[in-house]
Amino acid sequence: MNQVTQTPKGSPLLDHCPETLPAAWYYDADHHALELKRIWARQWVHVGRVKDLPAMTLRRIEVAGENLMLVKDQAGQVSCFHNVCRHRGSEICLAHEQKLKTKLITCPYHAWSYDLAGKLVRTPFVSETADFDKAYYGLIPVHVKLWNGLIFVCLAYDPPAFEKAPDLGASVLDNWPMEDLVSGHRLVKEMACNWKIFWENYNECLHCPGIHPELCEMVPIYGKGYMAANEAPDWTPEQGASGTELKAGAKSWTMNGLPCGPEFPKLTAEEREKGQTFVTLYPTCYIVAHVDYVRIVTLRPLGPERTELCAEWLFPEETLKMPGFDPVQVTDFATMVMMQDGAACEMNQKGLKSSAFKGGRLMPQEFDVHGFQNWVRRQVA
Amino acid sequence: MNQVTQTPKGSPLLDHCPETLPAAWYYDADHHALELKRIWARQWVHVGRVKDLPAMTLRRIEVAGENLMLVKDQAGQVSCFHNVCRHRGSEICLAHEQKLKTKLITCPYHAWSYDLAGKLVRTPFVSETADFDKAYYGLIPVHVKLWNGLIFVCLAYDPPAFEKAPDLGASVLDNWPMEDLVSGHRLVKEMACNWKIFWENYNECLHCPGIHPELCEMVPIYGKGYMAANEAPDWTPEQGASGTELKAGAKSWTMNGLPCGPEFPKLTAEEREKGQTFVTLYPTCYIVAHVDYVRIVTLRPLGPERTELCAEWLFPEETLKMPGFDPVQVTDFATMVMMQDGAACEMNQKGLKSSAFKGGRLMPQEFDVHGFQNWVRRQVA
Amino acid sequence: MNQVTQTPKGSPLLDHCPETLPAAWYYDADHHALELKRIWARQWVHVGRVKDLPAMTLRRIEVAGENLMLVKDQAGQVSCFHNVCRHRGSEICLAHEQKLKTKLITCPYHAWSYDLAGKLVRTPFVSETADFDKAYYGLIPVHVKLWNGLIFVCLAYDPPAFEKAPDLGASVLDNWPMEDLVSGHRLVKEMACNWKIFWENYNECLHCPGIHPELCEMVPIYGKGYMAANEAPDWTPEQGASGTELKAGAKSWTMNGLPCGPEFPKLTAEEREKGQTFVTLYPTCYIVAHVDYVRIVTLRPLGPERTELCAEWLFPEETLKMPGFDPVQVTDFATMVMMQDGAACEMNQKGLKSSAFKGGRLMPQEFDVHGFQNWVRRQVA
Repeated sequence: MNQVTQTPKGSPLLDHCPETLPAAWYYDADHHALELKRIWARQWVHVGRVKDLPAMTLRRIEVAGENLMLVKDQAGQVSCFHNVCRHRGSEICLAHEQKLKTKLITCPYHAWSYDLAGKLVRTPFVSETADFDKAYYGLIPVHVKLWNGLIFVCLAYDPPAFEKAPDLGASVLDNWPMEDLVSGHRLVKEMACNWKIFWENYNECLHCPGIHPELCEMVPIYGKGYMAANEAPDWTPEQGASGTELKAGAKSWTMNGLPCGPEFPKLTAEEREKGQTFVTLYPTCYIVAHVDYVRIVTLRPLGPERTELCAEWLFPEETLKMPGFDPVQVTDFATMVMMQDGAACEMNQKGLKSSAFKGGRLMPQEFDVHGFQNWVRRQVA
Repeated sequence: MNQVTQTPKGSPLLDHCPETLPAAWYYDADHHALELKRIWARQWVHVGRVKDLPAMTLRRIEVAGENLMLVKDQAGQVSCFHNVCRHRGSEICLAHEQKLKTKLITCPYHAWSYDLAGKLVRTPFVSETADFDKAYYGLIPVHVKLWNGLIFVCLAYDPPAFEKAPDLGASVLDNWPMEDLVSGHRLVKEMACNWKIFWENYNECLHCPGIHPELCEMVPIYGKGYMAANEAPDWTPEQGASGTELKAGAKSWTMNGLPCGPEFPKLTAEEREKGQTFVTLYPTCYIVAHVDYVRIVTLRPLGPERTELCAEWLFPEETLKMPGFDPVQVTDFATMVMMQDGAACEMNQKGLKSSAFKGGRLMPQEFDVHGFQNWVRRQVA
Repeated sequence: MNQVTQTPKGSPLLDHCPETLPAAWYYDADHHALELKRIWARQWVHVGRVKDLPAMTLRRIEVAGENLMLVKDQAGQVSCFHNVCRHRGSEICLAHEQKLKTKLITCPYHAWSYDLAGKLVRTPFVSETADFDKAYYGLIPVHVKLWNGLIFVCLAYDPPAFEKAPDLGASVLDNWPMEDLVSGHRLVKEMACNWKIFWENYNECLHCPGIHPELCEMVPIYGKGYMAANEAPDWTPEQGASGTELKAGAKSWTMNGLPCGPEFPKLTAEEREKGQTFVTLYPTCYIVAHVDYVRIVTLRPLGPERTELCAEWLFPEETLKMPGFDPVQVTDFATMVMMQDGAACEMNQKGLKSSAFKGGRLMPQEFDVHGFQNWVRRQVA
């Protein structure tokens, strides 16, 4: 038997080692289809920034395998529809993005036209019969929410409340000028793993010492295998819960630890001192806000064993305009960390498929992995 | 409610807007397998021209996923068999086409030999036992019909009557010297769509104004979105039903509208005036006969969402031998139109897969699409 | 009716023509999964030679679709485990082969470490709770047997007795110095056929006259379509059963029939005279021992219609060191024969898929094919 340490009061550590999700949930095609339906087609999914969608533009997007189109009208109103004509089912928006020349969305096949609210207004060349009423043949709508300049859509007929930042509350990013930031860099990477593997990796730091030497130097507590000081078995509440400060002298996740431009003016002293504020929105994305820039990482499941990651780095416009500004000094750091995590996720996926492995055990430090897995269990139940 | 026009007497227009086939019939793998079995393996399928199969030749063909071989004996008799040896199932005809050196079809594996009527005649090197009777182990035959120089095969045990040209009668091509024509050009194109999408596109002209500007110039009525004059809501029988004449000065589907060689001598004045005679043979092919050449377009389903189109241009031998004859002046026109249709079919296929789209509605002008869809419904019922 | 010859007494010929296995067993994905489970995951499978696995090395291998790792410790002990960590299922051995720096196998994800017998010894950075007992979380073992220097593994919980050389007895290769031989050449070829097609081809010589002209010259009896003299319908026991001697003047399977180096000293006169000793180990490999070298041919099913063949030529070390020794003079002969068989297997596979072919008939000479097919029937029953 192991020697067992008592969990300190107030510690987030689990008092037991729960079972993981069944291994088949990470590769079985039927289970993946169920997760698309019960999770990705029911939850709010991040599909881009309001600022990056020009007015009078139609954009093709994909959510949970569904072919959708976003549209922004002249007044800035963002709508979303299934990308399919009600006549014989043609795709309407063929390109990644196309400018609208009129206030109509026109199908390229037989020229049926819809207004920007989705109403069918024209069916050229056809005779009309009494049994066909245009009012029933508008574009099929998809729910839209905007939050902090981000567009979220939900395929469900009756979407859940948009919880904004479930872990931290709706106002967590209020001191960052989210809507005004400008994209300075984008990384798209396809990973050979199930999407849940990504979130499990995200939710613990036991792998940090072995996988992320540079990150452990930047955030010293990670080098102990903990996400925060209170994961240590000998922690006491007097030590403070966090301990996730960056190393001495560092203020942001950049190659040299220095801010890459002016700091956001409205941040509190605490926000500045932490140096990193994470917001997690299952299953779609997380946001890391630093004192000088913000990074958004968005997932898209491509199949049971393939996931697309898209990372976007957002800066104040003035930072991007600074003479000699080199985004690589900023983006290389998190890119390196994400590549290390991607390789770890892929080796996890490969091992999981052993038919001898039915499932594993979570350790006390993996309380957030456990929380994520329970969230998944509730969604698919 | 729409303003509704009364359908003129004698008009082909539908008096209502019927539902289309269910969207899943265009991509579901099980439904596709059913259509292969109920349609492609039961109907007559075009597999080439008699003239193009030399005597004493074996040719590998594929129909409804089945590996078959055509053979023509010394007397010109065409037969068709499954391409499989009755011993242990080896393929017999390995190449696209092979000359027969003897009047035997010999399996390359253990040299079992069959005569050209399919009877097993030799099983070399083996001892014989009483329980094996060669009479039961001939090649498995497939039905063959010849019509207008074309070879059709049918996989069914009990094939349907060969209806020749169901829409126009058996004699429709009698004034064209079909058996003597020579192939001058061939186009093979793979389309990312279900085979039925192709036929639906073929069966209406509502898409012509938007998709085919050059064709609408060649056949002016198409520019109104109609296949013939009687589709107009204000048509009256006095105007005549057709109105599908080529533009003034044009006599054939060529880039400049002029015949590419001598006109077929036996055509009637009406056949000359129309400039195009279409013959439709579901599900396999259509033929367009012009005053100077003939085009045959043949489909082959490769999967639920992949279809091969093969177009062949047939000319009188003397046309091909004219000094300076350039087939491109002829073939570019229909090639352009088929490429435009192929792109339209592919966008239709992409849109159809939206899970929010269960099916659409046909317009009164889509009477031939409706006829085709009802034909499909009857076959798979 | 055929004229039927009476089977001679003592002849191996079948007295009837049995049915083959159902055609679908050669391409149906569900049946293939069943064969992986009932045959490949239950039988002993050849995975390499002891001599070629260095001590303190971990090697990734695949058996029946399972991701495994072989390890050899400092004392030369070979073990095999599923390549998966018991924590969260990561793959452990990522490369084809990796040196061990310590006497521990360490997972690269969270650094759980196992000793070389598979026992879990370290789980760094984690707190311990009473419900987790390391003793239950060792690497998942796979059975290992060594025979004649070859490593065999078996995925079954309760493996069958290792029968060594079921057709000839355990001592059949005792006069060859199997453990000391050195690999001089390796051929890996992917064949587009089911693995059983390979064994059926291996088990009869009716195909030899048509497929293997060079081999029929080397082993004259093969040119009559027989594997041995006793397959002839007019054979009598007085003629002797075998008759598989190489042609006059030939002593080994080499391009010129001459031994490529010194002959193995301990062979009996009979072993020398035969010139070829075959050992068959269903489903995994066969071994052909000549007077001067040994060839091992190993199969790996990659899918219902894809099989990997790996052939390895083993020589005495002194042969490889002879000045001017050219292995091609040896390896070209069997390579040619195996390529001919591969093409035959692929044409058999292609024909078998005809839906009109449900199964064939075996001839009296195909007694070993019948034996193999009955062995398969018993395994999957």
